[in-house]
Amino acid sequence: MSEKLNQLKEILGEVSDLNHAASVLGWDQQVNMPPAGGEARGQHLATLGKISHQKSTADEVGKLLDDLKQEFTGSDSDDAALVRVAARDYDKATRVPSEFVAEQAVVTSAAFEAWVEAKGKSDFSIFRPHLEKVMDLVHKYVSYFPPTEHPYDVLLDDFEPGMKTSEVKEIFDALRPQQVKLIKDIRSAKQVKADFLHKKYNEKKVWDFSEAISAKFGYDFGRGRQDKAAHPFETSFSVNDVRITNRFEPDSPLSTLFSGMHESGHAMYEQGINPAYDRTPLAHGVSSAVHESQSRLWENIVGRSLPFWEHFLPELKKTFPSQLDGVSAKAFYKAINKVEPSLIRVNADEATYNLHIMLRLELEIGMLEGKVAIKDLPEIWNAKMQEYVGITPPNDAQGVLQDIHWSSGLFGYFPTYALGNLVSAQLWEKINKDIRDLDEQIRKGKFDALLGWLREKVHVHGHKFDPQDLIQKVTGSKINSAAYVRYLTKKYSEIYSL
Amino acid sequence: MSEKLNQLKEILGEVSDLNHAASVLGWDQQVNMPPAGGEARGQHLATLGKISHQKSTADEVGKLLDDLKQEFTGSDSDDAALVRVAARDYDKATRVPSEFVAEQAVVTSAAFEAWVEAKGKSDFSIFRPHLEKVMDLVHKYVSYFPPTEHPYDVLLDDFEPGMKTSEVKEIFDALRPQQVKLIKDIRSAKQVKADFLHKKYNEKKVWDFSEAISAKFGYDFGRGRQDKAAHPFETSFSVNDVRITNRFEPDSPLSTLFSGMHESGHAMYEQGINPAYDRTPLAHGVSSAVHESQSRLWENIVGRSLPFWEHFLPELKKTFPSQLDGVSAKAFYKAINKVEPSLIRVNADEATYNLHIMLRLELEIGMLEGKVAIKDLPEIWNAKMQEYVGITPPNDAQGVLQDIHWSSGLFGYFPTYALGNLVSAQLWEKINKDIRDLDEQIRKGKFDALLGWLREKVHVHGHKFDPQDLIQKVTGSKINSAAYVRYLTKKYSEIYSL
Repeated sequence: MSEKLNQLKEILGEVSDLNHAASVLGWDQQVNMPPAGGEARGQHLATLGKISHQKSTADEVGKLLDDLKQEFTGSDSDDAALVRVAARDYDKATRVPSEFVAEQAVVTSAAFEAWVEAKGKSDFSIFRPHLEKVMDLVHKYVSYFPPTEHPYDVLLDDFEPGMKTSEVKEIFDALRPQQVKLIKDIRSAKQVKADFLHKKYNEKKVWDFSEAISAKFGYDFGRGRQDKAAHPFETSFSVNDVRITNRFEPDSPLSTLFSGMHESGHAMYEQGINPAYDRTPLAHGVSSAVHESQSRLWENIVGRSLPFWEHFLPELKKTFPSQLDGVSAKAFYKAINKVEPSLIRVNADEATYNLHIMLRLELEIGMLEGKVAIKDLPEIWNAKMQEYVGITPPNDAQGVLQDIHWSSGLFGYFPTYALGNLVSAQLWEKINKDIRDLDEQIRKGKFDALLGWLREKVHVHGHKFDPQDLIQKVTGSKINSAAYVRYLTKKYSEIYSL
Repeated sequence: MSEKLNQLKEILGEVSDLNHAASVLGWDQQVNMPPAGGEARGQHLATLGKISHQKSTADEVGKLLDDLKQEFTGSDSDDAALVRVAARDYDKATRVPSEFVAEQAVVTSAAFEAWVEAKGKSDFSIFRPHLEKVMDLVHKYVSYFPPTEHPYDVLLDDFEPGMKTSEVKEIFDALRPQQVKLIKDIRSAKQVKADFLHKKYNEKKVWDFSEAISAKFGYDFGRGRQDKAAHPFETSFSVNDVRITNRFEPDSPLSTLFSGMHESGHAMYEQGINPAYDRTPLAHGVSSAVHESQSRLWENIVGRSLPFWEHFLPELKKTFPSQLDGVSAKAFYKAINKVEPSLIRVNADEATYNLHIMLRLELEIGMLEGKVAIKDLPEIWNAKMQEYVGITPPNDAQGVLQDIHWSSGLFGYFPTYALGNLVSAQLWEKINKDIRDLDEQIRKGKFDALLGWLREKVHVHGHKFDPQDLIQKVTGSKINSAAYVRYLTKKYSEIYSL
């Protein structure tokens, strides 16, 4: 039997190599590639995707898995988990033809290039025909699966295994009134001052400061690097090569610091996975929501806390003395948590962030149900932004074109951002029971106990457990909004004296 | 029959995609990758190499080629050339097992990392065990082929199809006494002044100047880019994404300019290939010597000429006024062509360069014949350097560890550098017959007629013709040293008043 397991691991190892090679090509496309190279790159990725798909859906794999599933029934070993995850992946992948995967790679590669251009020129019409093609593929993809409660379940399951659209709606429905009430209370409270965040800051110095924070957190630059890209993201080629990207926006210069913390959170997860899982389907974060819980924990719960800035502000003030002259840690803390209607999701404050997600979820479901036409997307986007957040984007670049996801065919992904926020708060409540003086440690710029806890409880396990099981195991309950509402209420009551 | 051709093209297209993906991974390894990522990268490359090899050696390919060879006999169409080149590649590749290719990728990936470290620490002992493994693989590789006049023929043929070791020796034998005499004459002549080349030059400004020259030559940065790496090289992922690397050496700051021209020469060749050859075996330069003829033509014949610096020196002096104060174009021209014993091949002057190649060829043949033990390599290297060039390297970094080639398993490659020099002079004599006022154009900083000529006569054809046939067709004779000797003699007689 161990021979069959070795055969399976050999094939999965090659699939992993092909997928990691594709990740390198994808990273290069966004960080380095001259745009003229896009068409050929699309073909390279199509071929890698096709071969990876052929290998992972070969009959041989199915036969090996059938035998191994019986062998490992009831075991909780790493190998049993590997067989279970591989069997689920196999079942999904065998429903999707190789030709579809190849076509998708070509279409999304071109769509990505078009999105970059469209965003640069703030012109949705450049992106529209590409998004229509992407959407056709999304419909085709869903059609390969047996009917579900809602067709969107098929898309969601790829990022949050086992989760249903109805469950997400239920969680969001419990959360929405609480956030709406909080925002309302804040609106009528005395506003905080944040003008010093929008002064002119030197790009290189901000960039260096961002890298210093990441290194202090425990992101290992010896096994990673940070580069510039149009959109911040994290990508992993092995546990020893986990990279992040970042950007600098002159209008919001310090957002680079928070993007850096966010992507470092993702990257530390990937760097912390058991190296024994290398080249297997266990060598990844368990789900998008759990991944996002890591990034949001470091970015928001740690990076937008008072103790954090009691440690880092003196250093930041040394770097930017004129911009931050006379600003106290408390004032800085309030400013970076200022609640206000904003256009860009990734820069949105914690009190409004989930509204951006709800907007996207509604549009995705609308497009999938055929109730939202792609040509009308900018108009509907802008109307919903006005309705939910209270402002209308002045152009498409700051509206419907702001996110990379649709250009890459990522539908079903957005809700996991909000779920990740909820999980981060669930984890945080538990961590603070286990590490009693955590605030004090953060105030001293010490993050090793925190990272150690996350490594042990979450990171090291990679994809071994199902996401809801892992969250239950670590925090005592499945994904829910209670902890997040407690966290938000406490934080903003303090900041706005509610 | 066209259906079979399409089937062949489809398979070769996938092979091309896999090889280009591997090139992206290789580029990234040398430009960006954190060293910790090396082991996993080796596995990625091993898997890509294995699959590419399996696909290109599949029985199906052999059958298609057998049928198509008959069909295309006597035709000089592009498709006929494609079938001919593919058949030769197939014959070679089917002799080498997939497992060998995978092993080679792993061994050379580790060897490359070791070489970087060894060179950094100037310690051959770090590299030695890796080079021994590489050499074992070279022996194994040769053993897969039928006996040749000399075992080295097998290695040479991979880079210079059809060329024999005995032919190279014959060409070198004709060349050696001429170069030796020239060097002797120069030694007894009045020496030129070049101290201003070794002053302190700002790295960024040199780098920018290098890119400005490349752009002026016609290297299209819209379809390429220049990055830093330990060793300058050119690599191509498609006709629309052809990249070069460069480096800055504080001891020889302006050598960056010449490395940049050199790699641009390679890159313009790849950027000029007929786009219709994309994803076929015709979409590459025809041989290493012809490739090198392009880089050396731009670097040496153009870039170290008087007319070139009559145009560029005023601008360079504006950038570096104090370093080049009072230096005339003539004086600068003499300085950059100063003949002197030097340690580093890529920085060697044209009069001594081929001696560096002869040293390497002798060592490679010695290692292959088992007459040179790898442990003795630094000692033998240093002794030969003393014998041929008149100086002994003070350390391994400037001696046996200076070149990347052996760490990548590139044996049989070095002689093509010298052959490339010869071809560059053969082409230059012909170009000057066709473009009568070329010197005058260069003096005005105009390179479009020159690049146009090279595109039309050489670049656009890619791998369509055999290298010796192409050279014969374009220049009227096969590779020989006559034009190069005329070029060298004229140039140095002028500089040293011989």
